Amino acid sequence: MIVIMRIGCSQEEINRVMNRIEDAGLKAHVPFGDERIVIGLAGQVLPGLRDALELLPGVDQVIPISKPYKLASREFHPQDTVVELDGVAVGGNDIVVMAGPCAVESEEQLLVTAQAVKAAGATVLRGGAYKPRTSPYEFRGLRQAGLRILAQVGKETQMPVVTEVMTPEDVELVAQYADILQIGSRNMQNFVLLDEVGRTRKPVLLKRGMACNIQEWLLAAEYVLLQGNEQVILCERGIRTFETYARNTMDITAIPIVERLSHLPVIVDPSHATGKWYLVPPLALAAVAAGADGLLIEVHPDPDVALADGPQSLTFDNFRLLMSQLMPLAQARNRKIAMPRARIKP
Amino acid sequence: MIVIMRIGCSQEEINRVMNRIEDAGLKAHVPFGDERIVIGLAGQVLPGLRDALELLPGVDQVIPISKPYKLASREFHPQDTVVELDGVAVGGNDIVVMAGPCAVESEEQLLVTAQAVKAAGATVLRGGAYKPRTSPYEFRGLRQAGLRILAQVGKETQMPVVTEVMTPEDVELVAQYADILQIGSRNMQNFVLLDEVGRTRKPVLLKRGMACNIQEWLLAAEYVLLQGNEQVILCERGIRTFETYARNTMDITAIPIVERLSHLPVIVDPSHATGKWYLVPPLALAAVAAGADGLLIEVHPDPDVALADGPQSLTFDNFRLLMSQLMPLAQARNRKIAMPRARIKP
Amino acid sequence: MIVIMRIGCSQEEINRVMNRIEDAGLKAHVPFGDERIVIGLAGQVLPGLRDALELLPGVDQVIPISKPYKLASREFHPQDTVVELDGVAVGGNDIVVMAGPCAVESEEQLLVTAQAVKAAGATVLRGGAYKPRTSPYEFRGLRQAGLRILAQVGKETQMPVVTEVMTPEDVELVAQYADILQIGSRNMQNFVLLDEVGRTRKPVLLKRGMACNIQEWLLAAEYVLLQGNEQVILCERGIRTFETYARNTMDITAIPIVERLSHLPVIVDPSHATGKWYLVPPLALAAVAAGADGLLIEVHPDPDVALADGPQSLTFDNFRLLMSQLMPLAQARNRKIAMPRARIKP
Amino acid sequence: MIVIMRIGCSQEEINRVMNRIEDAGLKAHVPFGDERIVIGLAGQVLPGLRDALELLPGVDQVIPISKPYKLASREFHPQDTVVELDGVAVGGNDIVVMAGPCAVESEEQLLVTAQAVKAAGATVLRGGAYKPRTSPYEFRGLRQAGLRILAQVGKETQMPVVTEVMTPEDVELVAQYADILQIGSRNMQNFVLLDEVGRTRKPVLLKRGMACNIQEWLLAAEYVLLQGNEQVILCERGIRTFETYARNTMDITAIPIVERLSHLPVIVDPSHATGKWYLVPPLALAAVAAGADGLLIEVHPDPDVALADGPQSLTFDNFRLLMSQLMPLAQARNRKIAMPRARIKP
Repeated sequence: MIVIMRIGCSQEEINRVMNRIEDAGLKAHVPFGDERIVIGLAGQVLPGLRDALELLPGVDQVIPISKPYKLASREFHPQDTVVELDGVAVGGNDIVVMAGPCAVESEEQLLVTAQAVKAAGATVLRGGAYKPRTSPYEFRGLRQAGLRILAQVGKETQMPVVTEVMTPEDVELVAQYADILQIGSRNMQNFVLLDEVGRTRKPVLLKRGMACNIQEWLLAAEYVLLQGNEQVILCERGIRTFETYARNTMDITAIPIVERLSHLPVIVDPSHATGKWYLVPPLALAAVAAGADGLLIEVHPDPDVALADGPQSLTFDNFRLLMSQLMPLAQARNRKIAMPRARIKP
Repeated sequence: MIVIMRIGCSQEEINRVMNRIEDAGLKAHVPFGDERIVIGLAGQVLPGLRDALELLPGVDQVIPISKPYKLASREFHPQDTVVELDGVAVGGNDIVVMAGPCAVESEEQLLVTAQAVKAAGATVLRGGAYKPRTSPYEFRGLRQAGLRILAQVGKETQMPVVTEVMTPEDVELVAQYADILQIGSRNMQNFVLLDEVGRTRKPVLLKRGMACNIQEWLLAAEYVLLQGNEQVILCERGIRTFETYARNTMDITAIPIVERLSHLPVIVDPSHATGKWYLVPPLALAAVAAGADGLLIEVHPDPDVALADGPQSLTFDNFRLLMSQLMPLAQARNRKIAMPRARIKP
Repeated sequence: MIVIMRIGCSQEEINRVMNRIEDAGLKAHVPFGDERIVIGLAGQVLPGLRDALELLPGVDQVIPISKPYKLASREFHPQDTVVELDGVAVGGNDIVVMAGPCAVESEEQLLVTAQAVKAAGATVLRGGAYKPRTSPYEFRGLRQAGLRILAQVGKETQMPVVTEVMTPEDVELVAQYADILQIGSRNMQNFVLLDEVGRTRKPVLLKRGMACNIQEWLLAAEYVLLQGNEQVILCERGIRTFETYARNTMDITAIPIVERLSHLPVIVDPSHATGKWYLVPPLALAAVAAGADGLLIEVHPDPDVALADGPQSLTFDNFRLLMSQLMPLAQARNRKIAMPRARIKP
Repeated sequence: MIVIMRIGCSQEEINRVMNRIEDAGLKAHVPFGDERIVIGLAGQVLPGLRDALELLPGVDQVIPISKPYKLASREFHPQDTVVELDGVAVGGNDIVVMAGPCAVESEEQLLVTAQAVKAAGATVLRGGAYKPRTSPYEFRGLRQAGLRILAQVGKETQMPVVTEVMTPEDVELVAQYADILQIGSRNMQNFVLLDEVGRTRKPVLLKRGMACNIQEWLLAAEYVLLQGNEQVILCERGIRTFETYARNTMDITAIPIVERLSHLPVIVDPSHATGKWYLVPPLALAAVAAGADGLLIEVHPDPDVALADGPQSLTFDNFRLLMSQLMPLAQARNRKIAMPRARIKP
């Protein structure tokens, strides 16, 4: 940590800062600077100390130097994390395409979708059973019945399944059915929920909160990792900005930044990032070009009658077309789209 | 709802839109417009229909006309809601000042703070027992022990108490100790939690999410109201923008906007909005000038050693100074600061 | 400046940083830190050096310590700047209300408005002759004819006048008619224009750019000050955020922040900040409560037929009502509204 | 335009709206709606009318239907615009790479850079002679001397050159030397400058303002087009958001949106969008994957000593590496990188 003093601060103020640092059991380095005095300190800084120092007279600002996350940091863990699902690995050289409807509506709807997306090259099936909705008047999901359908269709089509869990109480139940537990963007800082999924041994797909910066996203991952669950997949899904043509602003730059700061795999959800189906294919292609490890895409047999998020869902035809464009693009980046294959688990 | 067609759309496309509207059991009005055709429809529009129409060929955009919230809307409920606590009313002519430490740290810390803020004119005591923290390495509150201290000190000083509840499972417990249940900004769209506090009969202080617009905030209130709990107090606490000098950007305009759109009382938390104690007094004064019904202010006996949010806490002296400035200001707006008085409940 | 090295950087990398600093003629301090090495340097840092250091291998980040503005900074100029107009001072104890129509439309329109706002207590007359418009199809102002009317009406009503100048070529002309040169928010970083108004000896009202942070705003002021023009009045007028109910988000916190960082006076334009007339009075009151030195308010005899910005203009009645509310509010803050008085200049 | 009335508005209020519409010479359609009355109107709506209607009693909101830009709109001009430079076409099937230093520093620096980027596959040379700088203390460009060097090196290497013009007065001069006139993001709404470049017959590269939405960007293009200059190239360069790791947030979604709304070509500047050289290659690749018609990339022989924007400049080696990655990627999208070829002009 670095303490920057105001111009013209007194020797007494400098001493007080140094004493406060030493009271906390840390080492204050010799102050330096001409016009403006700077004091550095080393050692494990407790959270309150920064605040305390910033309040002392003569202090202009306090600048932390350490990154606040450790377990999620590439500096402490240079090797890429690869999350191994049954039959597919996220974070390796292959790009994993997860696809399916926004919400599980019926077994038939899910099965026909699963078969279509698998045939086109998707390897993980997505489908929401619990749906967070901005308005209390909208469809909130089939809940446990949806979980059952999801697991059943996943088994039938031999695809691992990913679904959202919205509240700590449901974690155990959802974990019985799902292969990946999704934390939605509105819950990225639901810390009780993060602790709870951290205590499972299921991979966690952690969506970025729409007003959260990258450091906060990695700190949310840190919550999960700290409970001993190392299988975290990050998912960029757009942030909130003044531009309103698309539902959110997809932060494509987050992909190479996360790759630099963290060892965790990062995928992209262009469906929620844009809210409009015709923007999904260009953004899916862009995400892979920028280095994403996978995609999460909404596909619906008849978006026209979908109970949720119809306008951002691809039809089967449009999904097939996208997959046919993704394959050469991945190749141009020396990667390939992960192939659907038989699962080992019965 | 209004459907706007693309320039040059075909009659067949227009017909398809009108048929889709009528299939949904609604009435489509005669299309109008010269250059660009517009179709209006009336009746209760189900959520999926908007999406479905936007997908039809020839459609440029679909514009909703109804406000999506009803119970929170002033159009449907012109009379101001006044939340009656034991001994103080929020949303009437008096401005209610809620004050206390960010986190309950000990009985002594809370008691001395409660006595100081009450003496200075605060009428509600705040104190966190469960603390949402961006980093898992920070102090997360005394939890149930904190609740006990809070209730005890509230009783001793005859002040109603407000404290945050972070997860649905804790609602029942927190409601046993608290007079007002606070939903933090990170939980504004934790819909399971909103449902749960909606099922209690305790007043709910609903902080605005830092990336949520006013409509979404009112929709979150709608969740609580829909469960039958009519005692919702809205709390503006800053939104996230590109300006980073203060922790957040306090959206002062939200106060008169909410007053126009909703009948619910609105208060302001200048401590979290700014993150710096020296910005709290000017923003507290501004909030009251703009029409806020109350304030939520962090006060600590020794911010220098606070376990949480020290830099944004006022000392007792600074809080007293602020209160002495608030009183004439409230008067200049033909309001007054609510007076501390004896509670009726034992 | 502080150079923070990556964890595990080599001694050679540290040496290279130190050599680079010394090559630039500056002094590098002894590196310190346990886990992470930090190097401080002192002396006048040229702009390119920060960039150069950040590129060196082993460097994690470079943190500037000096504030980039000097002339606008309170640290270097603790005394408040008071801008003296003929008959009114901006930045002293009195709050200056500047009012008038968005655009000068005719002599009659301006005269009747000037008389009304002066009678209600405004001391400076605003009126646009050159109007920046988002669309090329909108009214762009009466230009020189507007300037002539403005000066004429200002003389007749004995009010100093403020008007926008949009381009360097017009500065000389506008300065012949105006008492204050306004730089609009879209031109806050029009550096050629800043240089040009800096070369005049007319007070400059510098609106904050809608995507500019406070440091950039003060740097824009620095451009003007650096040319020798010390009479800069800052004007907050809302920033752009995701919240769209009002036209912009008024950054009320900017007022006390600017007061802390700079000696320049700061006023607020609640008309452009909100875009809706009914939001103007609460925000005007809030601005004064937060410490603003003045207000810039749009008033129109008949907003219904205004050629520009009708919806944000107050009627005469609403302006009078606002002034009657402002006076006691200013008093409650130990200030007062500046009184209209005779100008000395003929 | 659509006028939406408040619930419970009176017949008199409805009539007043209809009369106001007809007074403006437009046709008001029969009001419709159950709970909420809606009035549609057709015809060319003058700017002030929307505002006027919104002020009438009983009106909830007014929603424009027409897009405010015409010349820039794809609805009115379905065919793609291709900007033809001497020897290269922007907006066709080939992707045009524009590269060079942020600022022209010397003939030698520019020549060696031009040769390097041309050899690697760039077809247009960029270089700043007039530099907008946030701080007045930074290097502001070689000005006319820089223009001369730029034109000289462009001729020598047979590359068209693009350079920024900052103020209307300089347009004529810059147009003598440059093949493309660049409008910087801070000047996107410098309307006098837009008019002035619109009066030349040089292609204009119009960067998006960092707080401007897509509609405002297209309206800025409309200014240029309205003066008769049809050769506008749009350039996305990042918008300002709360995320601060990169200098700006590149809005990759803007590419397919602009392609849908406008016939103008759109390119991307990943250097300014990110401010960090190591983020430039992934974003350049992403931009092409998303459908961009070209790239504008900063390259410097020795970024370590660059006078401006060193940290975002690629070295020659990194630029060559990027080009070798772009070529297969473009092919995977059925496009190709434009080839450098001899210019026809002497």
